[in-house]
Amino acid sequence: MTAARTLARYAVTETLEKIPAAARHEATRSILNWLGCAVGGSRHPAVDKALAALAPFGAGNQCTVLGRRERTDALNAALINGLSAHVLDFDDTHLRTLLHPSVPVASALMAVAQRQPIDGRDFIQAFIVGVEIECRIANAIWFAHNSHWYITGTAGVFGAAAAVTRVLGLDENATTHALGIACAQAAGTREMAGTMTKAFIHGRAAQNGLLAALLAQQGFTAAESSLEGQHGFANVLAPERDLAALTAGLGETYEILANSYKPYACGVVAHPVIDACIQLHNEHRINPAEIACIALTVNPRALELTGIKSPPNGLKSKWSIYHSAAVSLVDGAAGEHQYSDERVNAPAVLALRGKTTASADARLPEIAARVTITLKNGTVLEKRIDRVIGSAENPMSDRDLETKLRGLADGVLPAAQADALIALVWRIGELKDVAELARTAAAT
Amino acid sequence: MTAARTLARYAVTETLEKIPAAARHEATRSILNWLGCAVGGSRHPAVDKALAALAPFGAGNQCTVLGRRERTDALNAALINGLSAHVLDFDDTHLRTLLHPSVPVASALMAVAQRQPIDGRDFIQAFIVGVEIECRIANAIWFAHNSHWYITGTAGVFGAAAAVTRVLGLDENATTHALGIACAQAAGTREMAGTMTKAFIHGRAAQNGLLAALLAQQGFTAAESSLEGQHGFANVLAPERDLAALTAGLGETYEILANSYKPYACGVVAHPVIDACIQLHNEHRINPAEIACIALTVNPRALELTGIKSPPNGLKSKWSIYHSAAVSLVDGAAGEHQYSDERVNAPAVLALRGKTTASADARLPEIAARVTITLKNGTVLEKRIDRVIGSAENPMSDRDLETKLRGLADGVLPAAQADALIALVWRIGELKDVAELARTAAAT
Repeated sequence: MTAARTLARYAVTETLEKIPAAARHEATRSILNWLGCAVGGSRHPAVDKALAALAPFGAGNQCTVLGRRERTDALNAALINGLSAHVLDFDDTHLRTLLHPSVPVASALMAVAQRQPIDGRDFIQAFIVGVEIECRIANAIWFAHNSHWYITGTAGVFGAAAAVTRVLGLDENATTHALGIACAQAAGTREMAGTMTKAFIHGRAAQNGLLAALLAQQGFTAAESSLEGQHGFANVLAPERDLAALTAGLGETYEILANSYKPYACGVVAHPVIDACIQLHNEHRINPAEIACIALTVNPRALELTGIKSPPNGLKSKWSIYHSAAVSLVDGAAGEHQYSDERVNAPAVLALRGKTTASADARLPEIAARVTITLKNGTVLEKRIDRVIGSAENPMSDRDLETKLRGLADGVLPAAQADALIALVWRIGELKDVAELARTAAAT
Repeated sequence: MTAARTLARYAVTETLEKIPAAARHEATRSILNWLGCAVGGSRHPAVDKALAALAPFGAGNQCTVLGRRERTDALNAALINGLSAHVLDFDDTHLRTLLHPSVPVASALMAVAQRQPIDGRDFIQAFIVGVEIECRIANAIWFAHNSHWYITGTAGVFGAAAAVTRVLGLDENATTHALGIACAQAAGTREMAGTMTKAFIHGRAAQNGLLAALLAQQGFTAAESSLEGQHGFANVLAPERDLAALTAGLGETYEILANSYKPYACGVVAHPVIDACIQLHNEHRINPAEIACIALTVNPRALELTGIKSPPNGLKSKWSIYHSAAVSLVDGAAGEHQYSDERVNAPAVLALRGKTTASADARLPEIAARVTITLKNGTVLEKRIDRVIGSAENPMSDRDLETKLRGLADGVLPAAQADALIALVWRIGELKDVAELARTAAAT
């Protein structure tokens, strides 16, 4: 039996009753965070431009564009809502693989939920199935894949496909083909860092997975050996791979439990430095003008992924550990505003960025960092972070996530509407029709 | 200057006047062949299923589905017409790289031509620009890429994007971004051979390229270094690469001149064997029942790509050199009918397939093959092909291409309509609005 068929059988037979309550709750937290990110990203120019480009071609009016007044067809809704949910780089992260689980799965599922009624329990179940499959595929390749590819663009499309096949009620055979059609659309290389196309790659994973399921529903065929075949996903997109990770313990463990949420609006590898800088800012009320130099010590991957010394704009600044450190010390925060063009060019931030150096230390895990600040008067301030906030060891609380959503919705939805959305998400298991969530997340 | 910008500058500044007449004529031949393939493939179940899956989501009625009565929106027209133009594996081939140039470029361009009037000269010019760019990108990687990827799914998307940016009148900057957005959608691995998803990958290249151009038109951003960057197209999708091929002699040589057209409805690497078998069939009027055994000697790549010994269905039989040899000897032909489920299971073909062996000989070029037939009475018949029909050295004539189109249109369009379409294509340089071609290729 091929890996795709084993995963398809799991997608068809999984039941909510069997899934631990902790996994169901984590799924609900993920959906809350996804909605917040989509609402918060919905006014980004990338979303404006994508909507303008696509509007003439879609059937329109089928689905909500989260955070906006426009409506669009289901396929484009999956793309646009996925794009807006990722464009701030603030969405959830499967820490082991750096895959962003909710963007493909939730964006595709919510589009379908506005074409046919799906109750909250079925939605959560399909969401967990989709996340399980995309994360397992990511587990099999990430270590030999992530240096070049956006794993959400490649593995995420399988998760979206699997989740949608489940709510469409497709059988094992059609689901196997859907995973194959998904495989044929796996795309997106890291060269696009710091451009709108990065978020497009993530949104496209949702749309591509949805399309795969819709084609499979019609009997469209693909290779069964899409995952382990000689010219299949794992062999082509990763020089080394751990195929056992695809199916070992399937249905017994739940990858959703390894999901995490960002307190800061940039790639997770920079978070320990930000955590340290904000703590130093709060503890010492440092005047940035008095800083002589800042030395960051981080895990090598952090430096590899966020090594941009002088980011030219806000989007690129999310990939600059230097900017993250500087702006955290100046503002005491690292929300979306700190990664705006304005903050990138602010004289105080610019000056501090120039005084910041970074070095890699392979002994530091990715959730850790050391920051050493030398003041002009010779004082040395140091902060070591061992378990960054948002990590598995130090997760954001439910209240933290609510606060994050309110912050993201600020200026997009009225506060009362954001509160209503939060309340509705916590009640998702009782909802007869989860489209209510989308309606509540639309601007009026 | 990045390679993408150099190619973008070429796309913006190329002029038809400068392009040799031979290249313009080859482009016209390519468009004729593309239309024939799309019409001929238009009734394939893969097309039915894709149309059914997509119909609920598109704006509809913007564009012709070639060979059919349905109409669809421009983005889906690019996909569906690309899919139908490739699904018979009968479309054109850039012989050096095995890229199928017309499917992405012509399918995307014709969709745009039904949204805004494009005259025949502008269409040909944009077509040549698109083919030039996709073939150059293919030239840079094919030798280290094709074993795993469908190069039309990966390089083709750039061609579609470049052609569309040209007719949309985008500037160098936007065209550079369009190539980047195209890069982010490059996808499609060879594991999908013999399934509907193979043709989907090819059609999707047209749609993805069109989408890239539409997004770039709105100011959507992508990396300039999409082609040569560390995490860009060439470095990620090919372990070795020849980046000089991207731009050397750009605007002086024309890749369209290296295009070729298939006389037989399967992958080109099997064509020399088919050519030999049909010639043996015609010369000796062999009774298949009298054949003891058939020995094929081919270039190693032919065996690698078409080594399926017992194809389970018509689609897979296109990748079986054994089936190609057997059916050519039984039927004296290798058109679409010879790759049907019926012919795959026909007792006479089945019996001959079982008597066929194949071996690789690296001294044979890809356009050559040897076929040795031993009859039960001991007679040995041999045929060596040095320059297969359809090769650069022995191309199909304009009349051959017309005959091929008529055969493909048989049963889809009335003969008079096929003739009118052929006449119209040869007059493309005079057409005020090439949408006339699409209208003439629609079923009524």
